[in-house]
Amino acid sequence: MADAGIASLDEMRRVLGDLPGPNLEAGSACMAREAKLTKPPGALGRLESLAHWLCLWQGKHPPTTRRPRVAVFAGNHGVVAHGVSAYPQSVTRQMVENFVSGGAAVNQLCTVMDADLRVYELGLDQPTEDFTRGPAMSDEECARAVAYGMMAVEPGVDLLAVGEMGIGNSTSAAALACGIFGGEARDWVGPGTGVIGDRLAAKIAAVDQAVALHRPNCRDGLDWLRTVGGLELAAIVGAIIAARLARIPVLLDGYACSAAAASLAMSDRHAIDHCEFAHLSAEPGHKRLLDRLGRQPILDLGMRLGEGSGAALAIGVLKAAVSCHAGMRTFAEAGVDGQV
Amino acid sequence: MADAGIASLDEMRRVLGDLPGPNLEAGSACMAREAKLTKPPGALGRLESLAHWLCLWQGKHPPTTRRPRVAVFAGNHGVVAHGVSAYPQSVTRQMVENFVSGGAAVNQLCTVMDADLRVYELGLDQPTEDFTRGPAMSDEECARAVAYGMMAVEPGVDLLAVGEMGIGNSTSAAALACGIFGGEARDWVGPGTGVIGDRLAAKIAAVDQAVALHRPNCRDGLDWLRTVGGLELAAIVGAIIAARLARIPVLLDGYACSAAAASLAMSDRHAIDHCEFAHLSAEPGHKRLLDRLGRQPILDLGMRLGEGSGAALAIGVLKAAVSCHAGMRTFAEAGVDGQV
Repeated sequence: MADAGIASLDEMRRVLGDLPGPNLEAGSACMAREAKLTKPPGALGRLESLAHWLCLWQGKHPPTTRRPRVAVFAGNHGVVAHGVSAYPQSVTRQMVENFVSGGAAVNQLCTVMDADLRVYELGLDQPTEDFTRGPAMSDEECARAVAYGMMAVEPGVDLLAVGEMGIGNSTSAAALACGIFGGEARDWVGPGTGVIGDRLAAKIAAVDQAVALHRPNCRDGLDWLRTVGGLELAAIVGAIIAARLARIPVLLDGYACSAAAASLAMSDRHAIDHCEFAHLSAEPGHKRLLDRLGRQPILDLGMRLGEGSGAALAIGVLKAAVSCHAGMRTFAEAGVDGQV
Repeated sequence: MADAGIASLDEMRRVLGDLPGPNLEAGSACMAREAKLTKPPGALGRLESLAHWLCLWQGKHPPTTRRPRVAVFAGNHGVVAHGVSAYPQSVTRQMVENFVSGGAAVNQLCTVMDADLRVYELGLDQPTEDFTRGPAMSDEECARAVAYGMMAVEPGVDLLAVGEMGIGNSTSAAALACGIFGGEARDWVGPGTGVIGDRLAAKIAAVDQAVALHRPNCRDGLDWLRTVGGLELAAIVGAIIAARLARIPVLLDGYACSAAAASLAMSDRHAIDHCEFAHLSAEPGHKRLLDRLGRQPILDLGMRLGEGSGAALAIGVLKAAVSCHAGMRTFAEAGVDGQV
């Protein structure tokens, strides 16, 4: 999949123009069974709509969550030179090592959810350029990161949860969102790992400057991805699209993942129909972003860690949805009377 | 535990006057460790506060979720004579049989969450009295149901999720809430399993009538429980209190469980500090009830099934909270740099 044919962003644009749609037959089979299960119609709420969504995008009924994968993409960001983060850039690699040795939050969550965890490093020694001065990436660098991200999708995986690690990437996410949706930088910038005061002001200023610099050259979401995004965010875009092609539904983690997904939605509003937003991040711009996309997160637990933690946690809700849908008896099977 | 000494509601009142408090030492140990884990402070949001809450009420650090139990209490209600439900009373027993044979939603959810499911029947052939005409239960009947509910709590269980099954019990829940918190019956009555039109009007009328009838005789929440509650709701009250005495935190399911818990909170606002509200039910009165209690539900998934389904689902969030808290490395252990 590394040679998935994405050598330039224009090739990616061609792929986006021809994405497979939902499997309506599987969706209908799901709804037909749902109506017969031993509960009042609609009583499982979001669990019912999630089972239906899985059917549509896995293209099968019943849906499965037997092989969920959590894919965490890590990259570094030139914009950290502006002092936009509470932590030094060295932490990106150190946290990758923490993922590999099992000590991070996402490791524990994958264990609880019985999910496979993969970590993908994107040249941590080669951060993107400082996007307040020029594009974060060249077209080729961005396309290469997209192609790399596509590797996270392998046969047999039936649900892909994506996350990221990258000191500075909440600044990149804010710039992406501001570029894509418009508005002021301060609407989209938040504390990230915990910046306040002067550092928060520097973060807002960097986003303002970057968006003003690149706006004249950005026609679509992929242009914004290249100019103010990051390597790990480009890889997430690749993973999302590879999953669509392979009929694997996607759970997106917080603000940074959602901003990456928004760059696809800007190109084609149906490009992320196979994605659900796992949770509402405490990062204030996330609510605004989801509102713009008209999406409802699955969980709202005040989390703002990244590293795929919210997406990993939401796997449990999808497992519950699948288990109820597939395992419950019908009124006829259970001998339960229907409505009077 | 069946002979827990609760032979009258006055004995229950004495128990409520002398409940054990939180274990602050375990809570402090939790916060000390939390601050050292490899994440920005507070970045796991509600997962952190839930781990802390478990420590306080299990009285130990680290907390555990190794033996969660889902206890579902089933009872029947005389008020169904008013045509307040979309389903016949026969469904209570049929659903109990469905629980026992593994075909209901809660069975699937317990499997996913690796939780033990127990179902407790409260004389399904002997519904409560029609509470629009007189008290639903005598003092002794109510106390016996409370004592029966206490049996759900056994040594070794480290988390108790409570749920209910009882055709007509959303009417009872609405009457309880209206009695306890005041306001109009229509503020507290919702569609339950799906009633509209004339049946919804009958449900509102029954609650209005019952609350007006019993208000002069109700001094506290236990009086409301006896007069407009149900056998399964009284059993839930017993389970909540037995769990407090045994240092077992409690997850409450939807509207009916919350109304039962509110009858305790009316007697002593700290009586349910060891309980979390697992989810926000789609039943409209539930939001109002949680607002009155000043509580934030863990999940909000539009569920309105009862049978402990929301509480069973939230066990996954608690397992995640415990796993992160206990399993993550500290900054020092993982060699990750702190804030700059």
